[in-house]
Amino acid sequence: MSTRRNPIPEHARMVFKGVLFEVWQWEQEMFDGSKQTFERLRRPNTVQVVATVGDEILIQDERQPDSSRAFPSIPGGRADEGEAPLESAKREMMEETGYSSEDWELWKEENPVGKIQWTVYTYIARNCKKTGEPHTDAGEKISSKLVSFNEFLALADDSNFYSPEIVPEMLRMRIDTARREEFKNRLFG
Amino acid sequence: MSTRRNPIPEHARMVFKGVLFEVWQWEQEMFDGSKQTFERLRRPNTVQVVATVGDEILIQDERQPDSSRAFPSIPGGRADEGEAPLESAKREMMEETGYSSEDWELWKEENPVGKIQWTVYTYIARNCKKTGEPHTDAGEKISSKLVSFNEFLALADDSNFYSPEIVPEMLRMRIDTARREEFKNRLFG
Repeated sequence: MSTRRNPIPEHARMVFKGVLFEVWQWEQEMFDGSKQTFERLRRPNTVQVVATVGDEILIQDERQPDSSRAFPSIPGGRADEGEAPLESAKREMMEETGYSSEDWELWKEENPVGKIQWTVYTYIARNCKKTGEPHTDAGEKISSKLVSFNEFLALADDSNFYSPEIVPEMLRMRIDTARREEFKNRLFG
Repeated sequence: MSTRRNPIPEHARMVFKGVLFEVWQWEQEMFDGSKQTFERLRRPNTVQVVATVGDEILIQDERQPDSSRAFPSIPGGRADEGEAPLESAKREMMEETGYSSEDWELWKEENPVGKIQWTVYTYIARNCKKTGEPHTDAGEKISSKLVSFNEFLALADDSNFYSPEIVPEMLRMRIDTARREEFKNRLFG
């Protein structure tokens, strides 16, 4: 997925603002010179974190109130209005797991789906320490656990894994040993 | 990605209807008994086709009027209101490429993204023949070509490839020879 895939044009106007999504429209000139109303959405950006603790990776099982299923995921969530992505990542990891890190790096920045202006920032947080207690809100139930690097890559085969943006890269690491070792070094030094 | 991931509950109400997206909301009881307004979108389902011609696969380069880039893709598009997915797939392949097939099979049915009720149907169409002329509308410019099975799988590494739903499966076929051969047999018999 390329970045900046779905920008809303400057001359678009917002025709609806919901609790999560905004709907924007504009008149688009077509290839034959005719015009059509084009529509695109905007939603809050999201952040997620590949967090290492010793030689393991911090993952979690998450439940949401409108589903009975638990989803394995990596820590993360929605950026607040005006909040820089790195700050969102630090806040979400602390709220969900109680862990913090002093060694952060942006790994990926992607627009995962057509017709929606929405960026997913994936960070690496190295050498995380438990420095607080999780404080999840009424809309989530989360339990954290540590897994090996190979167990982490195997999550790409779990159809409930809740971080689809990184699945292709996880699979590429399983095809390509050099790519896997490079990422492992990047995570664990 | 599991199917039926984002159903809109029956008691939700539609609060906005755009040209492509509908916005639905409902009051959701949280884990602590409090309530919050939840929001979900609905959009037309889409279809796409892995189409074989002899021992090759039909792909295309597509341009849309609000972008200067061309995207490699497989034939497909949006289902019309009330149209069965298989009919949409046949119609889109004919409109975009002029090819038709008498041997169709549903390969995948997925809900690719959270918070949106939207299903992507991916079909296999075997032994396609050119039986008409493409008729693209004013909103697309499309040129078709034939590629080998391995060239098709290599598209998973093209960051502009416009069928992200099938990328993980294409990568899994490159990890797993048995999986690749099974799919190749399914395509070419």
